[in-house]
Amino acid sequence: MGILYNQVADQLQALIRDGVYREGERLPGVRVLSRQFGVSISTILQAHQTLEGRGYLEARERSGYFVRLPAKDAPEPIMQRYRAKPVPVSARDMALELCVDEQKRMVPLAAAVPHPDFLPVRQIQQSILWAGRRGLEYQDYAFPGKESYRRQLAQRMATLGVPVTADDILATNGAQEAIILALRAVTVPGDIVVVESPSFPGILHALEVVGLRVIEVPTHPSDGLSLEGLQVALEQWPVKACVVVANHSNPLGACMPDERKRQLVDMLEDARVPLIEDDIYGDLFHSGERPRPAKAFDRTGNVIYCSSFSKTISPGLRLGWMVPGRYMAEARQHKYFVNLATSSIPQLAVAHFLEQGGYDRYLRSARQNYRQATERMRATVARWFPEGTAVSRPQGGFVIWAQLPGKNTGTDVYRRAREENINVAPGLIFSTASKYNNCLRINSANPWSDRIEGAVRRLGELAEQSLNG
Amino acid sequence: MGILYNQVADQLQALIRDGVYREGERLPGVRVLSRQFGVSISTILQAHQTLEGRGYLEARERSGYFVRLPAKDAPEPIMQRYRAKPVPVSARDMALELCVDEQKRMVPLAAAVPHPDFLPVRQIQQSILWAGRRGLEYQDYAFPGKESYRRQLAQRMATLGVPVTADDILATNGAQEAIILALRAVTVPGDIVVVESPSFPGILHALEVVGLRVIEVPTHPSDGLSLEGLQVALEQWPVKACVVVANHSNPLGACMPDERKRQLVDMLEDARVPLIEDDIYGDLFHSGERPRPAKAFDRTGNVIYCSSFSKTISPGLRLGWMVPGRYMAEARQHKYFVNLATSSIPQLAVAHFLEQGGYDRYLRSARQNYRQATERMRATVARWFPEGTAVSRPQGGFVIWAQLPGKNTGTDVYRRAREENINVAPGLIFSTASKYNNCLRINSANPWSDRIEGAVRRLGELAEQSLNG
Repeated sequence: MGILYNQVADQLQALIRDGVYREGERLPGVRVLSRQFGVSISTILQAHQTLEGRGYLEARERSGYFVRLPAKDAPEPIMQRYRAKPVPVSARDMALELCVDEQKRMVPLAAAVPHPDFLPVRQIQQSILWAGRRGLEYQDYAFPGKESYRRQLAQRMATLGVPVTADDILATNGAQEAIILALRAVTVPGDIVVVESPSFPGILHALEVVGLRVIEVPTHPSDGLSLEGLQVALEQWPVKACVVVANHSNPLGACMPDERKRQLVDMLEDARVPLIEDDIYGDLFHSGERPRPAKAFDRTGNVIYCSSFSKTISPGLRLGWMVPGRYMAEARQHKYFVNLATSSIPQLAVAHFLEQGGYDRYLRSARQNYRQATERMRATVARWFPEGTAVSRPQGGFVIWAQLPGKNTGTDVYRRAREENINVAPGLIFSTASKYNNCLRINSANPWSDRIEGAVRRLGELAEQSLNG
Repeated sequence: MGILYNQVADQLQALIRDGVYREGERLPGVRVLSRQFGVSISTILQAHQTLEGRGYLEARERSGYFVRLPAKDAPEPIMQRYRAKPVPVSARDMALELCVDEQKRMVPLAAAVPHPDFLPVRQIQQSILWAGRRGLEYQDYAFPGKESYRRQLAQRMATLGVPVTADDILATNGAQEAIILALRAVTVPGDIVVVESPSFPGILHALEVVGLRVIEVPTHPSDGLSLEGLQVALEQWPVKACVVVANHSNPLGACMPDERKRQLVDMLEDARVPLIEDDIYGDLFHSGERPRPAKAFDRTGNVIYCSSFSKTISPGLRLGWMVPGRYMAEARQHKYFVNLATSSIPQLAVAHFLEQGGYDRYLRSARQNYRQATERMRATVARWFPEGTAVSRPQGGFVIWAQLPGKNTGTDVYRRAREENINVAPGLIFSTASKYNNCLRINSANPWSDRIEGAVRRLGELAEQSLNG
């Protein structure tokens, strides 16, 4: 990270790890540290907050910051074994219990939906008012999308290494619809599709909508989809598509290295199997450079790129887009058949927001916020969850994946927690098999509060209870 | 019609029909008629315009109004014969050529999309700005729909004889999505569904999206779906759903009488076949009272009501709704799976518009405008199309259905017209069979102009050419 307080935090963390500052000790005062590091007092205060988020410091009122070691610095989850047989996808009742509507009364740790504090509420409001004043521009069906919106997207795609024009882009109702249109464009019901395991439940829902069968290929917590597993699947079955979240997969947060993305794209092109890429978390990397999408390595139009602004601007807009490559004609027709066009107002508003340059400015701070929230959540889970819990280290996005000891601990904790109005996503919805009954996914895009901290601690207690009886 | 100038127009028209005023004669001056009918001069002027719209008068500059008989007062189209075998639905390439995007360069007589002159552009802009200022209210996924929007809809549904609460309503991306969700809720791929013939192409697209087979039952130009035909279909095949536009069917404009709606609902309930009703034109009746939806006769929750604001407020909002009755759980789940929720801003804006009472005020004038536009289009088609052409008399909505002599005249005229940048909907897309190749559907929701009149006249000439060559 180039940002100063992160550098200070990293150095302080190293000092703690090396035992220079021991658990329970009070950290030197801010003035002392300010001199020591040669930075301003406010930078030291920001570094403190960062380390608090990571679980290495504890603020005590009127006493300053005290060192603590993150209770157990949990290991990363292990990769699941390859499962060879395609199965039909069928919905689980639980999916609806996780949706936002149900969450309103509960502590919202389930759905991967950011709290408005993480969103550019004021800026998008300005852009909606700007668009709202253009009454004649939003009367028509915006098929295949408002020109201004698609032109802005084309400019952004170019910066990601995907040189396209507005004509190559289709506006959609979020990434979910884009994935469904992509699947419809390249499959017929009954076809076999490869997905990651654990898989974002929305992708499994999309497969069910289209009537497809699934092969789940294991995903590595840091490197993403197992290319070896994919190779086996391609050799054994007539696979018709592969759906991948290459950047900051949900739920693991894994980011596929560029070289593996290139291999993935080439492997699928050789097999003549279309790749459907969901890049919804691509803009929310925690450090370094914006990871490139797999689409950037596509030379033949075989990659169908899908994304949306639901995690970065506002979920309520329901605004996404796709770059269908050589499957444009089919995707266009399906879009027209399912709902003719995407609502015009959100497109005009987002086009205006992007054009003003406000989006990139907002993203810089949003990434810091998501990173801090995720690190704090990781530290809190590591601290309160039972011995033997593994916790993901997401490189982007804002969800945490916890693998608990025991066989059904995740599902069990989910059920018990709902009775206490805490909503969390049970691992079992991330697979068609019962592979992740010991897991939980936790949304960390909430402002930190005693209520949130208490809820995570309570999840840990419920897990202990589940393990002990 | 309760409106004075319409009464005057009706009486003048009767005088013309009875030969009191003969073709080519100049009508008495406005002052004379004003005394004769005991109404104001402006009422006489409005009556003149109305009769001009119907094709019985022709304005000549500085000379007044001259009587003409609508060239040939074309008969109504005849009902097609029943076709017994269910067939899979497959898309026709032509569908996309009709969509708005393609129309922009052409005379827009194809898509059933109102010109903004027919829409409450200023009012909805006000409501969008009102909604836009409520930044925090549109951040979340609005699943199953914004409360304020669903509450306003519940109030409107009650006035139609459908007493429901906000909880019974699901917000959708237009009526098209509602129909697809309804079909998904009650069928599985391969099932057989009854539709009207001729059928709105969007319904055929919906059937294709879900992978269904279709039985087309003839629709009477005034009375709607043939209940006798439906009975035969129900007896011969395992029908799983029936999709009907009971009020002002597209393309015929037929409105099913209440008693037949009741029979339709009872017949399907007895057969345990769900009725999917598309009421998108219900608010656009041309005279008398708002026709009740079939849903008003539903005692068991077997009718799935679908509608939208695309024809009445703005197509670009992409905002509709459904009342799924006893199929709510399935419809909800499918909505969540296909795109999670409908965009929030349009819902807040329409809720505000409805709450302010502006919608009903606007509808009163919109109905007059649509009626006049449709009558004028009907008269113009009757005047310029070849001898032997039958033309629908829509009781609501804004499309005209013309049945031409010859076998492929409709398709032929469509093709020739496109080369001259006139876009019109060919009959063949209103059926899976090649039943309506002699037909055209014409959108009349455009401000009248020489360009429109010239285009209709040209369609007539192309039809003559087609018949003679």
